[in-house]
Amino acid sequence: MLLLIDLQRAIDHPGWGIRNNPDAEKTVADLLAHWRGKKWPVIHVRHDSKDPTSPYFPGQSGNDFKPETAPLRGEDIIVKRTNSAFIDTDLEARLRRYPALVVAGVITNNSVEATVRMAGNLGFDTWLVEDASFTFGRKDWDGVWRSAQEIHAVSLANLDGEYCTVIRSDELLPRG
Amino acid sequence: MLLLIDLQRAIDHPGWGIRNNPDAEKTVADLLAHWRGKKWPVIHVRHDSKDPTSPYFPGQSGNDFKPETAPLRGEDIIVKRTNSAFIDTDLEARLRRYPALVVAGVITNNSVEATVRMAGNLGFDTWLVEDASFTFGRKDWDGVWRSAQEIHAVSLANLDGEYCTVIRSDELLPRG
Repeated sequence: MLLLIDLQRAIDHPGWGIRNNPDAEKTVADLLAHWRGKKWPVIHVRHDSKDPTSPYFPGQSGNDFKPETAPLRGEDIIVKRTNSAFIDTDLEARLRRYPALVVAGVITNNSVEATVRMAGNLGFDTWLVEDASFTFGRKDWDGVWRSAQEIHAVSLANLDGEYCTVIRSDELLPRG
Repeated sequence: MLLLIDLQRAIDHPGWGIRNNPDAEKTVADLLAHWRGKKWPVIHVRHDSKDPTSPYFPGQSGNDFKPETAPLRGEDIIVKRTNSAFIDTDLEARLRRYPALVVAGVITNNSVEATVRMAGNLGFDTWLVEDASFTFGRKDWDGVWRSAQEIHAVSLANLDGEYCTVIRSDELLPRG
């Protein structure tokens, strides 16, 4: 099962700042093509923000899936209203049919991390693709600026071995 | 509701490395004394590790509550087996009776963060006491060493305003 999180046009809003992994969408597209070729299941998670000022708020273009990784007709879509894709959705029940879960999407330290933490704690065999996820720079609680890659790297360290296994896409994709 | 997470002797094991907030147990004890004086509810979460090599594994002294913040007779104890205190416990049902949730304990970026993320996503009005929690230094995913305070500060930044409100204990305690 490939679970793609919040890959909507909203993530291109300039208000987010500077991101890492500029090729992540291409990598997700490669994963999707591989999954589709194998006829393995895919779930696209769409974030419908409850905040009218969010670019993820429904009813405007930011809520649309990014075209390069958008669902094909017939692929499953789960709509969530908060960070974790397990809250107030049927994701847990859907995943119980599959042996393992591969996660990618945005942003690493928020909806991806919240979802991966729950997936691992719920007992799913969970894998997170480091180069198919990204995040943005921000200040930490002590006021120190942390780059997108620093925030990404701390998030992955929190998750790997405790909630999931962090891997690179080239461990999943055929050599091309 | 004061929710104390994993404050057991295991957290003093030298294998964890160097921590931040050396006065956190004293701060938790002050919060506990205040809560008890007001007869407000307290839940002590105990981690029963599934890993026989963990200092949190049941049946040895590491699993015991730290004496300075241990439950009094009659105070509620919830036993968990994974990071989030909501997984396979009745914590959510218990909390629905109370208007707000104040969290403290260990370690900031693991069981505390997993529990606070779920609390916020489940809709609880959640507060995290920054000086009543602590963590340990570690390498990030890029191999860069991050001090305990850096890991703590990135975790609090991830949580504040998104899953909870981060506060200091002096915002909760009477001026002494």
